[in-house]
Amino acid sequence: MAGTRPIEVHSGQGGAMPEYRVLAFDIFGTTVDWRTGVAEQVAEIAAAQGVSLDAEAVADDWRGRYLPSMRRVNDGERGWTYLDTLHRESLDELLAERGLDFPEDVRRALVRAWHRLPAWPDSVPGLARLREKYVVAALSNGGFSLLTNLIKAAGLPFDCVLSAELARRYKPAPEPYLTAAELLDVRSEEVLMVACHSWDLDGARAAGLGTAFVERPREKGPHGADRPGEVEVDVTAGDFTELADRLGC
Amino acid sequence: MAGTRPIEVHSGQGGAMPEYRVLAFDIFGTTVDWRTGVAEQVAEIAAAQGVSLDAEAVADDWRGRYLPSMRRVNDGERGWTYLDTLHRESLDELLAERGLDFPEDVRRALVRAWHRLPAWPDSVPGLARLREKYVVAALSNGGFSLLTNLIKAAGLPFDCVLSAELARRYKPAPEPYLTAAELLDVRSEEVLMVACHSWDLDGARAAGLGTAFVERPREKGPHGADRPGEVEVDVTAGDFTELADRLGC
Repeated sequence: MAGTRPIEVHSGQGGAMPEYRVLAFDIFGTTVDWRTGVAEQVAEIAAAQGVSLDAEAVADDWRGRYLPSMRRVNDGERGWTYLDTLHRESLDELLAERGLDFPEDVRRALVRAWHRLPAWPDSVPGLARLREKYVVAALSNGGFSLLTNLIKAAGLPFDCVLSAELARRYKPAPEPYLTAAELLDVRSEEVLMVACHSWDLDGARAAGLGTAFVERPREKGPHGADRPGEVEVDVTAGDFTELADRLGC
Repeated sequence: MAGTRPIEVHSGQGGAMPEYRVLAFDIFGTTVDWRTGVAEQVAEIAAAQGVSLDAEAVADDWRGRYLPSMRRVNDGERGWTYLDTLHRESLDELLAERGLDFPEDVRRALVRAWHRLPAWPDSVPGLARLREKYVVAALSNGGFSLLTNLIKAAGLPFDCVLSAELARRYKPAPEPYLTAAELLDVRSEEVLMVACHSWDLDGARAAGLGTAFVERPREKGPHGADRPGEVEVDVTAGDFTELADRLGC
């Protein structure tokens, strides 16, 4: 991935205090409300099958298997595996545990629920403001196609889509963050990673990026959410419009 | 680049007549007017140096070295080399041949002229219409960063940026076209490559993509341009709005 770059195309300031040129946004939880979106689609699809279930509990259970499934890829237990495949495997497990036997086409439709999720209300207006000053990029563990579909459906005004798929390792490993900087031809400290998850911001910081914590208290419904102060970050904001304020947009 | 994909995420129609899901657009010449944009910036930068030159002739000469420089990469004469580096080498050659000795910072500024080019008048409105029905992607030999900058500056409403850089081979080799289809999780025949260059459309067709020729008669100023009918294509249009008409957008 990504080629040998000529030194002349780097035009960073080189000062002690980096000036951000790119804002890289986490997507699931940070930019879109995965829990509401997945639970609604699970409820609808299950109802069409005549199955009654607690759709929010399914969404929570499904998401709970997300980090462990990616960790097995990053730890080398298995080769690079696309997020849709991880989602499908987790789904099959949780359905089996619940004694639910959905047919193949229904399982496929459920996996695709993650391709269409509602933006938080501040995401579009906040990104529109931030985009005036910075390159705004999506940087998620979701696949390139998933992200392109999701961003298009939600009308999110990103300048470009980046994905862990381009680095073939998942965040919080350093490669996705460094690949983003390399593809956008900036130094890692010129990228500000924006996320609502401490583990993501920790990974970004370890890779040399700046970090912005945006609080999303409703991300996991009643199950709490990461809070500011759990990890060291450069910027903290309540939402994307407050982030735009903080960054002088 | 790009991982093992689960069969379930492909949702193509599978019929004999492919339905396009993605429109992939060439950029230099097809979507933006490189000649006017480069010549204007060359004229401005040269004037600031107190140098008088024929800026359009420089632009033409520079562009003339484009395909041969990429061919050397594709033929394996040299490893993957970023387009800005090829542009810089071509610039150094043509300046030397003209006896012009610009300093380093001026040469860098000249290379960056290719990062900021005006869209053809129909590009933004045409893309906006096409985007309602299709995923619209930039697919150029320009680097990812160059393309992101250029698309942002010109306000082109693409859903995502793709680049030969992601495949580490230049069009018309098959890899950039196939990588685009793979990243967007569609079959190659579900991608319609849109370009004003016969060589690009020939490459796309050889990789299994659909092809649309858009005529840009002013691309090379007085030096002619590729004409429809030189290679077999699936769709022909005079500009992007006529392409939108043809595709029922």
